[in-house]
Amino acid sequence: MALLDDFKRGDRRALSKIITHIENRREGYRTILAQISRFERKAFRIGITGPPGAGKSTLVDSLVAKLANTGKKIGVVAIDPSSPFTGGALLGDRVRMQHLADKDKVFIRSMASRGQSGGLAAATRDVITVLDAFGMDLIIIETVGIGQIELDIIEACDTVVVILVPESGDMIQTMKAGLMEIADIFCVNKIDRPGADRLVSYLNNMIHERLGEFSQEFPAVGTNAVSGLGVDKLSDAISRHRDYIVGNGMFEQRRKRQLKNEILSSVRDRIVKDLDHMIDLDGQFESISSKLNSGETDPYTAADEIYEHYFRGRLVNG
Amino acid sequence: MALLDDFKRGDRRALSKIITHIENRREGYRTILAQISRFERKAFRIGITGPPGAGKSTLVDSLVAKLANTGKKIGVVAIDPSSPFTGGALLGDRVRMQHLADKDKVFIRSMASRGQSGGLAAATRDVITVLDAFGMDLIIIETVGIGQIELDIIEACDTVVVILVPESGDMIQTMKAGLMEIADIFCVNKIDRPGADRLVSYLNNMIHERLGEFSQEFPAVGTNAVSGLGVDKLSDAISRHRDYIVGNGMFEQRRKRQLKNEILSSVRDRIVKDLDHMIDLDGQFESISSKLNSGETDPYTAADEIYEHYFRGRLVNG
Repeated sequence: MALLDDFKRGDRRALSKIITHIENRREGYRTILAQISRFERKAFRIGITGPPGAGKSTLVDSLVAKLANTGKKIGVVAIDPSSPFTGGALLGDRVRMQHLADKDKVFIRSMASRGQSGGLAAATRDVITVLDAFGMDLIIIETVGIGQIELDIIEACDTVVVILVPESGDMIQTMKAGLMEIADIFCVNKIDRPGADRLVSYLNNMIHERLGEFSQEFPAVGTNAVSGLGVDKLSDAISRHRDYIVGNGMFEQRRKRQLKNEILSSVRDRIVKDLDHMIDLDGQFESISSKLNSGETDPYTAADEIYEHYFRGRLVNG
Repeated sequence: MALLDDFKRGDRRALSKIITHIENRREGYRTILAQISRFERKAFRIGITGPPGAGKSTLVDSLVAKLANTGKKIGVVAIDPSSPFTGGALLGDRVRMQHLADKDKVFIRSMASRGQSGGLAAATRDVITVLDAFGMDLIIIETVGIGQIELDIIEACDTVVVILVPESGDMIQTMKAGLMEIADIFCVNKIDRPGADRLVSYLNNMIHERLGEFSQEFPAVGTNAVSGLGVDKLSDAISRHRDYIVGNGMFEQRRKRQLKNEILSSVRDRIVKDLDHMIDLDGQFESISSKLNSGETDPYTAADEIYEHYFRGRLVNG
């Protein structure tokens, strides 16, 4: 296939086309993915998450500009569930690219959650695979919120940075456990604002409390994404975390878990995609519908029966 | 079960407990759902969606206060994928309830997307079922964005209101088709701001263009959620749309499609929930892993093989 040859040769338009193909689950996307996933993949994956308004995009842009200067090839995947409304996925990439000196080293892609037949997390995983196979050294995954979808995506990262702002103070107390669970590095952006010092100390105490489980702690990093203050430090912290997890075997463990999740997510994706065709609901629907009307069944019992019929039997016997 | 008896008697604490149980997919949640879904359900479902910052929550609150005065029992389900970060799901409900005169008529519930094993859309559908069975006359589903999850949720509504603000102008052009597809009624909030009139005319032209397909058009409604301006008109438009779709049979059609989706979503939810247990990936993982290392397979081919083994065979033979 000519497109794959162009992709192998490093053609960015081919990369873009393949991502679109895969993101939209067009025919044959799994075949392309299967081929691409056999290419050499060596990218380190950095997840960046935090509440809306924390300045994630600006910080990612600064970080990318810095890292691109070191000669690294960087892929950015930006996920915003509301992007179809805000137009982020349509206009954002080009606007963001303008600020970069070395545009050839960086590829930014926003994920539009629209138009996918189920599974933003699965599609994101696939796009990460494609960027990795394209030869990126680093892949940055930028996502808002820590809902289930975001957690699934974050699971696919090697180092996770949680960006907070001084105003996040109240929220952190309620979310402490959840944040500690996902964050490898905390970053306090808009560090010039009142309350920033207090937040940094609070986070450092939290990190220190957890030290029992870890042999090395990573103190919170203060940044101002707009002026670029602290971005160096954040970049250093990420490198140190990388060395740390590679050194102590955590990296390999994460990769194993990621691979497992990648496979499961891929199975799940295919089931969800095929479900409507697999289950001949149309043929059964009239009979189900009349049973529902007569009170003989309910939607959940009907669903369980369909499930048993199509899936459970197979698993008991198979 | 005592809890179900309390629920039947209209006990709000029982309602709250059952929703939590179901939202968190605790043991036995499907049995409860199956029972509850057989209760009489007669609620009309109003979906309210729009970009972040359009003032959805404020508008929903005004609308609810107005509708509660007419003696209607109202359930509100607010979905915000970033709520675990912003604390919306934790603090929002109580704060929002304070503004209501007749608190007994209204039940507000925010959906935290965290803590669900896959499927915010499925969980939301289930919560709608529970509120309906509790005896609500109206259920308002408030959601941000129009990603796939939101579209699945919107599909479960009878009348869909898309809230825009004068600033949304640019976005609308790119999104025209998507918006027209989901909106039954457009509402321009913050109607006092510059550009509002132009947006209203633009929308009305769009609506008029589509008239070919429909026998009645619903012009865009202007509101100011904070002052309450236009909320009457919005409420009227929703009632008229309801009468319209009930009268021409569209309501029944939608309900049929919704029921079908409800069943499919329930099957899908159960598959996703059971997938990790169903597939003995741990047992196979070492062998898959070594095949991956030797280049004999790739994650997608491995996933396809697992899928074929567990599912496809059943469907061909079953």
